[in-house]
Amino acid sequence: MTNFSPSREFAKQLDQQDSLASYREQFIINDPDLIYLDGNSLGRLPKSVIERMKKVVEEEWGTDLIRGWNKGWWESPSRIGEKIATLLGAREEQVVVGDQTSINLFKLVTAALTFQPQKKRIITDTFNFPSDLYILQGIVRLLGNRHEIIRIGAQDDDITPDLAALENAITEDTALVTLSHVTFKSGYLYDMAHVTELAHCKGALILWDLSHSVGAVPIELDKYDVDFAIGCTYKYLNGGPGAPAFLYVNKAIQNDVTSPIWGWWGQNNPFAFNLDYQPAPGIQRFLAGTAPMLSTLAMEEALTPLLDVGMDALRAKSILMTDYASFLTDHLLAPLGFSLGSPRDSAERGSHISIRHKEGYRINRAMIEEMNVIPDFREPDNIRLGFAPLYISFADIWEGFDRIRKVMEEERYEKYPKQRLVVT
Amino acid sequence: MTNFSPSREFAKQLDQQDSLASYREQFIINDPDLIYLDGNSLGRLPKSVIERMKKVVEEEWGTDLIRGWNKGWWESPSRIGEKIATLLGAREEQVVVGDQTSINLFKLVTAALTFQPQKKRIITDTFNFPSDLYILQGIVRLLGNRHEIIRIGAQDDDITPDLAALENAITEDTALVTLSHVTFKSGYLYDMAHVTELAHCKGALILWDLSHSVGAVPIELDKYDVDFAIGCTYKYLNGGPGAPAFLYVNKAIQNDVTSPIWGWWGQNNPFAFNLDYQPAPGIQRFLAGTAPMLSTLAMEEALTPLLDVGMDALRAKSILMTDYASFLTDHLLAPLGFSLGSPRDSAERGSHISIRHKEGYRINRAMIEEMNVIPDFREPDNIRLGFAPLYISFADIWEGFDRIRKVMEEERYEKYPKQRLVVT
Repeated sequence: MTNFSPSREFAKQLDQQDSLASYREQFIINDPDLIYLDGNSLGRLPKSVIERMKKVVEEEWGTDLIRGWNKGWWESPSRIGEKIATLLGAREEQVVVGDQTSINLFKLVTAALTFQPQKKRIITDTFNFPSDLYILQGIVRLLGNRHEIIRIGAQDDDITPDLAALENAITEDTALVTLSHVTFKSGYLYDMAHVTELAHCKGALILWDLSHSVGAVPIELDKYDVDFAIGCTYKYLNGGPGAPAFLYVNKAIQNDVTSPIWGWWGQNNPFAFNLDYQPAPGIQRFLAGTAPMLSTLAMEEALTPLLDVGMDALRAKSILMTDYASFLTDHLLAPLGFSLGSPRDSAERGSHISIRHKEGYRINRAMIEEMNVIPDFREPDNIRLGFAPLYISFADIWEGFDRIRKVMEEERYEKYPKQRLVVT
Repeated sequence: MTNFSPSREFAKQLDQQDSLASYREQFIINDPDLIYLDGNSLGRLPKSVIERMKKVVEEEWGTDLIRGWNKGWWESPSRIGEKIATLLGAREEQVVVGDQTSINLFKLVTAALTFQPQKKRIITDTFNFPSDLYILQGIVRLLGNRHEIIRIGAQDDDITPDLAALENAITEDTALVTLSHVTFKSGYLYDMAHVTELAHCKGALILWDLSHSVGAVPIELDKYDVDFAIGCTYKYLNGGPGAPAFLYVNKAIQNDVTSPIWGWWGQNNPFAFNLDYQPAPGIQRFLAGTAPMLSTLAMEEALTPLLDVGMDALRAKSILMTDYASFLTDHLLAPLGFSLGSPRDSAERGSHISIRHKEGYRINRAMIEEMNVIPDFREPDNIRLGFAPLYISFADIWEGFDRIRKVMEEERYEKYPKQRLVVT
């Protein structure tokens, strides 16, 4: 990184060399002064979604009415699933969209545990989304507390997991290993090939939560013979607030497992209105009820620029952005009390970084309320900065860091209350 | 009904006396010739939804971005739940929206069965949505096949259930009685007070599926001390294709039961990111993952005209419409081989009727493909006609029946293939 220097001009040079720079034009940017570094929580609005939603509402719902189901709505979970599959390294008939991430996790974890009921261990880690851990806990209770959840521990300031502890925890008694591919705080990127192999060596199934990696890093589910995956579509996929999630089930096991939620969209011949459930063959059986079409079709449209660019170009820019942000952290912010809370090796990192400061909570508030910068905060001291390659410029990154510097030098965070006490 | 006579003029007189006639103006009706009798499957588009969606997409998502969650998105499941509660006879803090009908049924049935684990019977009937029966079957398997589902039987041509058989089936060993309040084929309306009392007498909980009754008939969940209810919002509530569903849990038992799906929206203090799940107090604990905002907020907007009119006026018009349609069935269609497949007593009927004919499948196709009338077909011989009081006129009903008459007299259905063979 010896060519980098902390100046606005250098950021502009990087932008001039950015082959994806023009994609920013495909997004609505109403406030050009806003530095939006939270695309890993809610992606920006692609312009084409506006027209598509108008058509969906006024023509498809307004005019076609119930006939809309025969004009593309009914097939949308599979059709969109196939589009997302191209980002996951998944061949056809393995991915569908519908329901929320937590619901899809519930379906697939339950399917995995009932597939090998004699095995009692579930391996995960404390880097996983808390919401994923909650779903696991609920399932264990539902199935009669016969399973044990092993959470590979980490200290609050750990950036990378303890891989040796993970390997040791996976035994012959392990039913399922489930982890976030990119962890939500430090942005650590697991080696999917290696960990999947660790699980399979012991006869365990594996489930990857791709919420923070899909659209940010290349993924090869088929190549590594992954069993299950889920992910959300409103982060790097820009699908819109709360857009439906996707799920992947490896073709080899699709017909050996079933969803615990026997919904009519997963029924064989749903319009026969049979009174007894018979699961549809293949991936279809993991659907549940009628999908929310407005949110679903907005999300489909939002995928367009991403699919156009492809993961290799996105990843190349993403790495350059997180490298640049790491460099700025060291050179601009370290003297102000910050440290990098993410891996230094880009091969171990997704498309966001965390910067840590003991006043992180108040600094984050000052950035949002006074500086027109939107990062987000995660306990205990992480300010998360997300870099969505399609619409973030290097000038944005420079400007964001420069405003953090200003907040610190002017002590603007001092006026905000200390981190709220959380009643638990 | 002696004042009725089968003429277009009489229908027009009824429209002139209809105090709700002007509400039709609040809906998009792009093809005035279309007779849309499928509002019980997918309600029409209220005009105000167009503006609201434009605002949600362009301002809330496009400009507010992640800040949208603090500007009304986060509270929307509760806020909209309270609006729907006014249609359900439910006091506050008992209704939330989110997830699909089948998911909500899964949550509440599982909650009910784990509340009284020693009780083994689940009582339902063959009039219930097949999709509801599938969910029950999946849960029974998931919980180790310890429960027995008793389906009160009916023959294909039954219109009303066997209430004596229902009463006899509910024993002290019954954990849950679950039925559709208005049944999807014949439109039979259960006596909620009576059946709830039957269940409670034996110590069973009750769950009503309100999908075909909400917005069509007055409902009094609190008055009858109902335990659980669910329902969809895209039928008479006009919420849009696949719009999120609602659920009701009686305040008295909210904290004694939990959802099996421990999602982060049901977590106490979700932003503390604790690693262990602790259910939120009250109705909030039945939420799961992040709700799909576009579909959710379109649905909220769609409720406006319905809430404005109120259930009493809607029910009064609905009864007059189904009475009129029954009359037309007898006088126009019975000579052509049709029979009424719905209760004759309006007190036992929702807002749709079924008309039966052995060629029902082909007649339904001819109506859609040649006559610009949209009913729908349900096995084995039911043509369903739904009458949404907010936008259906008596002239529509007359015209719909007159076109059915034309199809029969001109034998237009003959050219269509016989009902497709369903592979099961």
